[in-house]
Amino acid sequence: MAAMREIRRNALTATAIAASEDAVETARRHLVQPWPFAGSVGAEARALIGEGDGIYITDGDGKRLIDGPAGMWCVNVGHRRKELAEVMYDQAMALSYNTPWYTMNAPSAELAERIAGHAPGDLSHVFFTTGGSSAVETALRFMQFYNNVRGRPEKKLILSRGGAYHGSTYLSASLNGRPRDRDWMDGADELIVKLSSPNPFRRPAGMSVGDFADFLVDEFAETVARIGAGRIGAFVGEPVQASGGVVIAPDGYLRRIREICRQNDILYVSDEVVTAFGRLGHVFASDDVFGIEPDMITFAKGVTSGYFPLGGVVISARLMEELRRSNHPDAMFGHGLTYTSHPVGCAVALRNLDLLEGGVLEHARQVAPYFQAKLKTLEELPLVGEVRGAGLMACVECVADRESNDPLLIDKDVGKRIDAHCHELGLLVRPLINMCVMSPPLVISTEQIDDMVAILREGISRTMEDLRREGVWRG
Amino acid sequence: MAAMREIRRNALTATAIAASEDAVETARRHLVQPWPFAGSVGAEARALIGEGDGIYITDGDGKRLIDGPAGMWCVNVGHRRKELAEVMYDQAMALSYNTPWYTMNAPSAELAERIAGHAPGDLSHVFFTTGGSSAVETALRFMQFYNNVRGRPEKKLILSRGGAYHGSTYLSASLNGRPRDRDWMDGADELIVKLSSPNPFRRPAGMSVGDFADFLVDEFAETVARIGAGRIGAFVGEPVQASGGVVIAPDGYLRRIREICRQNDILYVSDEVVTAFGRLGHVFASDDVFGIEPDMITFAKGVTSGYFPLGGVVISARLMEELRRSNHPDAMFGHGLTYTSHPVGCAVALRNLDLLEGGVLEHARQVAPYFQAKLKTLEELPLVGEVRGAGLMACVECVADRESNDPLLIDKDVGKRIDAHCHELGLLVRPLINMCVMSPPLVISTEQIDDMVAILREGISRTMEDLRREGVWRG
Repeated sequence: MAAMREIRRNALTATAIAASEDAVETARRHLVQPWPFAGSVGAEARALIGEGDGIYITDGDGKRLIDGPAGMWCVNVGHRRKELAEVMYDQAMALSYNTPWYTMNAPSAELAERIAGHAPGDLSHVFFTTGGSSAVETALRFMQFYNNVRGRPEKKLILSRGGAYHGSTYLSASLNGRPRDRDWMDGADELIVKLSSPNPFRRPAGMSVGDFADFLVDEFAETVARIGAGRIGAFVGEPVQASGGVVIAPDGYLRRIREICRQNDILYVSDEVVTAFGRLGHVFASDDVFGIEPDMITFAKGVTSGYFPLGGVVISARLMEELRRSNHPDAMFGHGLTYTSHPVGCAVALRNLDLLEGGVLEHARQVAPYFQAKLKTLEELPLVGEVRGAGLMACVECVADRESNDPLLIDKDVGKRIDAHCHELGLLVRPLINMCVMSPPLVISTEQIDDMVAILREGISRTMEDLRREGVWRG
Repeated sequence: MAAMREIRRNALTATAIAASEDAVETARRHLVQPWPFAGSVGAEARALIGEGDGIYITDGDGKRLIDGPAGMWCVNVGHRRKELAEVMYDQAMALSYNTPWYTMNAPSAELAERIAGHAPGDLSHVFFTTGGSSAVETALRFMQFYNNVRGRPEKKLILSRGGAYHGSTYLSASLNGRPRDRDWMDGADELIVKLSSPNPFRRPAGMSVGDFADFLVDEFAETVARIGAGRIGAFVGEPVQASGGVVIAPDGYLRRIREICRQNDILYVSDEVVTAFGRLGHVFASDDVFGIEPDMITFAKGVTSGYFPLGGVVISARLMEELRRSNHPDAMFGHGLTYTSHPVGCAVALRNLDLLEGGVLEHARQVAPYFQAKLKTLEELPLVGEVRGAGLMACVECVADRESNDPLLIDKDVGKRIDAHCHELGLLVRPLINMCVMSPPLVISTEQIDDMVAILREGISRTMEDLRREGVWRG
């Protein structure tokens, strides 16, 4: 198999392997992994990764893997970018930290200006945070403050959707709509109104995609009418529901939702934590890909290619002006993090933006059709119900059979089974229940796409054999 | 004045100064500063800082300032530490990011082990986040999950206190109890029960400090009895209320509160975001300074000396074991950030801990008595009501007069007036309404303490003259 040529064991010394084993044992005794199960919390190790280089990472045994999810949708310009390591060193030596409460630094001002230059409409002001969750918290707390200052304290409800993922703090997590996310977790349910996921693959049987779009828009409009626009502060939505399974809504749906928000004075928050900074070939996708001008855009991840925790919100100049002209100029927006506008993070993001503008965005746009077409061939496999995607993000969704499209009649963790085979073959997959999400570093070449898809095909094939052998699937 | 010798204008080129002016203008157009007022939101610049070195920072005009608050209580080992810049470069070149969902890295395991080694009691497991707010969110969401798994979904209320500061996300900010914090901001008030601030300076007139301690402990016990321990999940408290004005509770108070929590199965969360990693001379202050073993400790800031956004929670092994032995091993703690266990952040923290253990902690313990004694001399000034502190954190609180101790009869922003004079004289102060908080880098020398206090004395004296001249104060 051609892809296998890429995979080799690095010449790890015995010392390095022993150190890896130590790290794994140490993690089991002291490290709490994120999203653990109660049965193994605080006593769990995961696959040790020691090195990264381009689109590859190397595990503790010296096995080289294609980084299929680009970390967590974030290593957009690839691993081991010397330009980014250097700027971290340089900025840390110049100014490693300044308090944003009373002072400011030049990199954050320059970065805000450059981000504003890429944002649609009048989105010209940037508030920086440490990642996606704090970006969404900022957008929502800003909406609450804005409506308090405007004398509309009852206009605070937030519309979200099934399949959504918006973060892992109490309020941001309350918006999440994926299965399992909230089974054992509390949330601010009294502040949230949930709508249907705009997932055409899961539309009601017999309904056309066009009718499904109408259904979604009607549901949105009827919900606003039923609750009353005077009680709804914001809609928060990903242009593509990413970790919900790369859900691409029907054509025109986002524009129609945006228009309803505008008519009802509901702030439209476009959550571009995944889609911004190149995943869909542009710095922001809201306008460049989907033709909408939101009131706020949240971003994180790709803004630093994951090298440094940074996120933020781009906010409309109109909202800022309204607040400045309000009757309460002394009202304080009591919000901000120690690491808001961090000088090192902003310097890394500036250099990362140089790389994106200097060729990586263009490359992503060029290889995206090949990436999507090549992955689409996996629909030949009977376990695969659909391959869908946009830009350099895609989802391979497994089903029991094409008639039912049922994800539950097969093994409940079929994604994990595929991931295990692919790891053996040299590819890290992001398994999501019955789905595998692929979102490699944007610098991936067509040859590397061939390798990636060949491994994924083999991993799915081996999983099909396993399922048949165990008698849990007859496809 | 001796301190003035330290202060000089660096030889900034005309180009550098023009660049500074550009940055300030750019910020006014595009950067949203944290904690802004509605009247200037999105149109505000703050003092530009260009460089840091040791305990000094340099502003956009080339003026060198002592960094009085050490950034935001965080630059503990000082600015321009080559060791930290180098480790950022090295780790970014080795592995800049790995997804903690399916993989792990060695620096996070090693850091968890070393932190656990400094933590009191059985606090042996560490969950990493990106800062203090996300650390507090983690502790609270963990408490909610823990009680859901144990079948006690009604045991979720959180006890907090006046004067507290715990973060800037919706839930963590709900705990805050400082004036102004929440005037225009929403919060999860239905989840929070507020108790009195343990501030002896603000105790009821005529009450002894010993009686005040009894009052606080009785209030705590009576609140638990009234609401019912079966409805209270956690108490969250800073060992020293930091940005509430460096509030040092009466002797023995923390131990007595801790005991009530233990008796009532209420998780005690010690918020050491400010006090950990050397501010009080130890890695953690809960046990080493105050003699308590909490169930969880939250940390951030000093763990990387502010060079990299990292925070976390140290959790008791007992809680982990209870969850692992529960009847719901499949229950998922649906919590974790993209930047949980970031390899670069953990590598920076390891090197920072080398520096702390290698002499900085010892130095902090040695100079702390001198720092406190020297600042205490400012009580000679009639505007100063009290100077209080512990370790290398202190607060100079201004009052109208010593009889009333009233902070409001003087100018409402007297702290900002003092800061403005001190900036001119070469010291950055952290003003808090009528207070000035001092928490310099831990590497400060006795000579530098002399400089700092001399400038502060002069800044307060000039402020007194201003207030007298304007006729707003007669002290």
